[in-house]
Amino acid sequence: MSEKTSYPPSLCRLINSLSRLPGIGRKTAERLSVSLLEWSDEQLQDFGQQLLNLHQNVRFCTCCGNFSEGDLCPVCLAPNRQRHLLCVVEQPTQIPVFENACCYQGLYHVLGGKLSPLNGRGPETLRLAELRSRLESGEVKELILATSSDVEGEATAHFLAAEFAREGLAITRLAGGIPAGADLNYADGATLALAMTGRRDFS
Amino acid sequence: MSEKTSYPPSLCRLINSLSRLPGIGRKTAERLSVSLLEWSDEQLQDFGQQLLNLHQNVRFCTCCGNFSEGDLCPVCLAPNRQRHLLCVVEQPTQIPVFENACCYQGLYHVLGGKLSPLNGRGPETLRLAELRSRLESGEVKELILATSSDVEGEATAHFLAAEFAREGLAITRLAGGIPAGADLNYADGATLALAMTGRRDFS
Repeated sequence: MSEKTSYPPSLCRLINSLSRLPGIGRKTAERLSVSLLEWSDEQLQDFGQQLLNLHQNVRFCTCCGNFSEGDLCPVCLAPNRQRHLLCVVEQPTQIPVFENACCYQGLYHVLGGKLSPLNGRGPETLRLAELRSRLESGEVKELILATSSDVEGEATAHFLAAEFAREGLAITRLAGGIPAGADLNYADGATLALAMTGRRDFS
Repeated sequence: MSEKTSYPPSLCRLINSLSRLPGIGRKTAERLSVSLLEWSDEQLQDFGQQLLNLHQNVRFCTCCGNFSEGDLCPVCLAPNRQRHLLCVVEQPTQIPVFENACCYQGLYHVLGGKLSPLNGRGPETLRLAELRSRLESGEVKELILATSSDVEGEATAHFLAAEFAREGLAITRLAGGIPAGADLNYADGATLALAMTGRRDFS
């Protein structure tokens, strides 16, 4: 009954919608709703329309699984990418991380997750058939496994390496080690062990 | 240039909109946008429409300043409220806190802030004219000052007490002291001093 005299129904509905977002609790949703009330009409119209048209505007690249507004994403369409390099990532959100680092000019393949048997995520939940058909053309000469460096990401990388091993295809894994600019005082044991195991000739 | 191949433009626009919310940084906005992509069409339509209609649906009560869908809010319209009690709060978001505590059956008045000379917020920024005209009818017998217990809230309470002092109007302030359920080991000095100064007869 006390809810009846708190927020007006339309504000309650907005609070409920915002609470559905990850990491947004009830109190935060209330705070966000109130701040939305202070937005200009134009800003609210923009935001609302973006949500209404989201599914229409943002799809997934039919080739690599990246976010895209057309059938193929800008990376797959770009004429100057190195088409013999294929970098396998878990999520489309990881592609901008590579792109912004300007360290890679090849193509991507989004797996759509990683193997996680405890959560019921087996190989059938990953975009493996798509990866297989991309490799079949023979254009790809190096498959770079860029899954996470946690247990599940490592397991996924091992699975992929076994699954796609074939003549003429180099399979590589992102190097593990000390992050750039890190203070060794605060390096954790697992990272230090990675860095030590993977040490390189420096001469 | 690297931004060109990161997120599609419509996703970028959504990320920008979300970044405008308080406490939502760039990375969080990206995470929220991606999670919005996973919402059903129906949920997105609901959320979008809520934003489009927000200003139309949610206004402010012309009497007390609470959020409202009509001219008057449910509290002002309720026939069973004690109309001789008027509780002055800073923001409309504080009204549900009282309502959910079920400790008060009077009316409210939203100031729209507190005095904060350092931030250029003087008495002219508060809804004082509205408060004065509500008090003029003589129906209100007790004005409860429920501004924050910080320096600015206290100053605002002192200002209001001086401004609206008159024959036949009791002016009260919410009690300060130890919060319910608190461990005295962790009480701060200022709170303890408040509690000691305000101690009551217990016999």
